[in-house]
Amino acid sequence: MIITRKELGSMHRIRRLNIVNSITGVKPANLIGTRSLSGSDNVAIFSSVVHLGSDPPLIGFVSRPKGEVARHTLENISETKKFTINHVRTDLVANAHLTSAKFKRDESEFEKCGIENEFINGFHAPFVRQSEVKIAMSLKDRVPIESNGTVLIIGEVEFVFIEPTALTEEGYIDLEFSRSAGISGLNSYYALKKLSDFPYARPENAEEILENGR
Amino acid sequence: MIITRKELGSMHRIRRLNIVNSITGVKPANLIGTRSLSGSDNVAIFSSVVHLGSDPPLIGFVSRPKGEVARHTLENISETKKFTINHVRTDLVANAHLTSAKFKRDESEFEKCGIENEFINGFHAPFVRQSEVKIAMSLKDRVPIESNGTVLIIGEVEFVFIEPTALTEEGYIDLEFSRSAGISGLNSYYALKKLSDFPYARPENAEEILENGR
Repeated sequence: MIITRKELGSMHRIRRLNIVNSITGVKPANLIGTRSLSGSDNVAIFSSVVHLGSDPPLIGFVSRPKGEVARHTLENISETKKFTINHVRTDLVANAHLTSAKFKRDESEFEKCGIENEFINGFHAPFVRQSEVKIAMSLKDRVPIESNGTVLIIGEVEFVFIEPTALTEEGYIDLEFSRSAGISGLNSYYALKKLSDFPYARPENAEEILENGR
Repeated sequence: MIITRKELGSMHRIRRLNIVNSITGVKPANLIGTRSLSGSDNVAIFSSVVHLGSDPPLIGFVSRPKGEVARHTLENISETKKFTINHVRTDLVANAHLTSAKFKRDESEFEKCGIENEFINGFHAPFVRQSEVKIAMSLKDRVPIESNGTVLIIGEVEFVFIEPTALTEEGYIDLEFSRSAGISGLNSYYALKKLSDFPYARPENAEEILENGR
């Protein structure tokens, strides 16, 4: 079934949103935690978190700067330069989804959505207690995306908290162990089931990799 | 367990790569297909594809411009302005992973990795036959990310191919139906299992959403 650019354009808005938001594949379900200078806490779900590089460790997320929900997150980051990224655990997807509702500026999504906050090592922004992987971030840059008026917020990792049970024997994060959820579109949530770990790919180990996948 | 920025910096490079590449959560497994002006086909796995907006439908991916593997993809896109994005089906993860090996410029990863190419509607770049969701893309912009010398390649959707069995009754893509895979780190692959679909979140339907998640 082929859907052309023109057909997408003339589709009902919600249907287009759902299709275009799911055609890129699974997205990570993350809660971004922030605290305003005056001490109001905010937590909001984002599916656009993207790894940008490992040295220095940089992570970005894409946001509509004037979106109703993202605005509080972006305002708090502008004020304090600090935010946290927290994996959504599979048993918390309903609570995480509810953070996308338009609560008032002085209402804490933590309270309204039944999510517990937590402060670690004196970091200014709140973490999500129930997350097994959480990251303390410092704002590094804001890159405007002129094609559609969104912005790529870039942060540098200050520290990472990982629940020891989320680590493999080799010390890597297993997203099935950490019960990290995925998202497709605007409102569908997925659990992850590990299929395979492969070695670094080289033309010389092609047979080994293809064999492992059988 | 807390890992500080400093500890990350002094870690063995491969261990740091594996941790920092997996702390953002699940990433979509996509094969990007390109064809040079002279007709050489290339297909390469990318885990950094990100939805940027729905109207116009824009999709980006992040790449190191001088990376050995990504270079052929980026050169072909520069030459032709066309590329395809294809979901990696769970039974094709080994083949997809192998595309990250450094094959020679004139070797086709399609042949070397046992991936079948396909041309749809006269579009210049090759698709992956076995993918159930595939997207024809036109280059729209290149946004340099100065913080680490990477680049965000932005494309506009020309058309989308969706296997009808990958659609829900409401016409949305179900990533479990399409057998789309997720990635964590550099070499771990996951299958997706649908947990829940939620309605658009509003403060007024908080109870309904939280109830649905129990």
